[in-house]
Amino acid sequence: MSNTSHLERVAIDLGDRSYSILIGEQLLDAASTWADLPKASAALIVTNDTVGPIYAERLQAALAPLYKQVHTVALPDGESHKDWQTLNLIFDELLGKGADRKTVLFALGGGVVGDMTGFAAACYMRGVPFVQVPTTLLAQVDSSVGGKTAINHPIGKNMIGAFYQPQRVVCDLDTLQTLPQREMSAGLAEVIKYGPIADMQFLDWIDANLDALLARDPKALAHAVKRSCEIKAWVVGQDEREGGIRAILNFGHTFGHAIEAGLGFGEWLHGEAVGCGMVMASHLSQRLGLVDEAFVSRFTALIERAGLPIVGPKLGADVYLHHMRVDKKAEAGEIKFVLIDKPGTAIVRGAPDALVAQVIDGCCEK
Amino acid sequence: MSNTSHLERVAIDLGDRSYSILIGEQLLDAASTWADLPKASAALIVTNDTVGPIYAERLQAALAPLYKQVHTVALPDGESHKDWQTLNLIFDELLGKGADRKTVLFALGGGVVGDMTGFAAACYMRGVPFVQVPTTLLAQVDSSVGGKTAINHPIGKNMIGAFYQPQRVVCDLDTLQTLPQREMSAGLAEVIKYGPIADMQFLDWIDANLDALLARDPKALAHAVKRSCEIKAWVVGQDEREGGIRAILNFGHTFGHAIEAGLGFGEWLHGEAVGCGMVMASHLSQRLGLVDEAFVSRFTALIERAGLPIVGPKLGADVYLHHMRVDKKAEAGEIKFVLIDKPGTAIVRGAPDALVAQVIDGCCEK
Repeated sequence: MSNTSHLERVAIDLGDRSYSILIGEQLLDAASTWADLPKASAALIVTNDTVGPIYAERLQAALAPLYKQVHTVALPDGESHKDWQTLNLIFDELLGKGADRKTVLFALGGGVVGDMTGFAAACYMRGVPFVQVPTTLLAQVDSSVGGKTAINHPIGKNMIGAFYQPQRVVCDLDTLQTLPQREMSAGLAEVIKYGPIADMQFLDWIDANLDALLARDPKALAHAVKRSCEIKAWVVGQDEREGGIRAILNFGHTFGHAIEAGLGFGEWLHGEAVGCGMVMASHLSQRLGLVDEAFVSRFTALIERAGLPIVGPKLGADVYLHHMRVDKKAEAGEIKFVLIDKPGTAIVRGAPDALVAQVIDGCCEK
Repeated sequence: MSNTSHLERVAIDLGDRSYSILIGEQLLDAASTWADLPKASAALIVTNDTVGPIYAERLQAALAPLYKQVHTVALPDGESHKDWQTLNLIFDELLGKGADRKTVLFALGGGVVGDMTGFAAACYMRGVPFVQVPTTLLAQVDSSVGGKTAINHPIGKNMIGAFYQPQRVVCDLDTLQTLPQREMSAGLAEVIKYGPIADMQFLDWIDANLDALLARDPKALAHAVKRSCEIKAWVVGQDEREGGIRAILNFGHTFGHAIEAGLGFGEWLHGEAVGCGMVMASHLSQRLGLVDEAFVSRFTALIERAGLPIVGPKLGADVYLHHMRVDKKAEAGEIKFVLIDKPGTAIVRGAPDALVAQVIDGCCEK
């Protein structure tokens, strides 16, 4: 790398499944970014038809010295394609090219590409190595880190998947410069998330630097990505398979999943649904006496300033409750909410349906 | 259990993924068989439309005291249904019934049911517990033990799957009494396999007791299942994810997969293809100077006496080689064969294409 001064490294400590997150500028083309990955004769870059045309050739060139063959497959873009049919395009490409079980997969794109590539890597010949190369803010701060992979089922989001860790995560901040503004905001939802669940100082920093983040100031982005990954690494390192504390990372996601499922996946961006879901979850926290109104107001204002929706779609409380009951955190039909216990600390608990319905009614379009 | 004298237990030692194989008669209805499994509010029995009508109700009755809800889904029977479409029937049932991520799956049937249920359990909400209840000899001695789960892809067998260990394996020997003779023979192929790769004394025992096994003598079956599971447990305990020694369990499988893929999956039973494949692999071992002709003759005669094919279908050597190159053991296009180094010991190595072609031509229909 010509300029290593901007390179940050965050370690995910999971025993023999440990790996590094590299965060910096100009990482994509640098040989050192790809050094010491598992040896193989072939690599497959999995991308989509939006990101592929911009970055796939550069990644292919960077990987060419390391693998005899570097193939690329571009999936159709969007959450609505996060299904078995599209996943199968990856398997078709691998088997069509005679890829063996040392073949390394590279996920070049956002959360959908990362989730699908990771799940394909988990399943192909019962497991091949893969590398995350997230090109959206959401993927850099959240979905590419921690080994959650999945596809959607018509009845529920991310219902079919695996815990499967990548060999490395490469967050090239330059790729965020080509991101549509709507996706920047969606990514900021997951950045903001880390504040109330783990680090209120970080929330203060986001509040103070939100304009710089929205303007994609590299220094601000570097800190936001790094601190987000550190918090995620700290949580995942304690609970890889979400038996306990890891569930706090789903703050806003229970309500958010209901919005996505209720409207049909892909209507709202995942980050938008999470942003609005966090507003609902903070209202529920307040109704349960866990946080005060000042917190909810300040937090809602921040979500709004980030360009995210703070009012939910009018689906009716019953529809929300129905979708939340098939959430993966639900147990025997009881919905488990991630709530803010006091600002900076999250808890996972149930809540009376009637109270939840009031929150939904209060937070949705009239 | 009214009669515990026939109960054998084999331990699979894999750290926090360890479990027991129970082998005996009258296990299906006994409460003690199902004691101390993970607690849950719901269970799903996955079976097929052949085995289900015979045993599903009995298993449902045995599990009823343990789970509030016990559902059953019967898949279409046969290797040709070991695909995504059929797998999705399991997910549809789970999501349709609102099954949460503590739900326990029970695989009631042969190898196909076990592989598919295991893979569904590995993927549903990124992993739910499952129990193997194998009702075929092949599944009891091989496929239900060791955590290999998968579905087929049109281009290759078991190409999409996971290493995912069950909570328990319950081998009720009584279920073998309803097995068609062709499937008994297919199961014996995997029993016989353990001799040349690991234990020639066991091969001698099989030779001496083959008539009793074919007549389904419970005592003979108990010993065959137990010794097979012990050898498999010993191998899998050293190499859960097939980085090395575990590959020896694929003796006969490289040629066998080519037969299955070449004829179309389901034409020959898996065990039949493995039986014939072991004959081919022993011929290749002889050509490479590893075993003598006496071994090959004796071994071939035993395969034939077990009711298994010893002559391969006439597909042409090129077709065999093509299918073997997409075998999971192949690396960068080089086929890796499991061969008998000396009787009782296996090795994994390559062989010249020309020599392999000679073996194929010599072992196939003219």
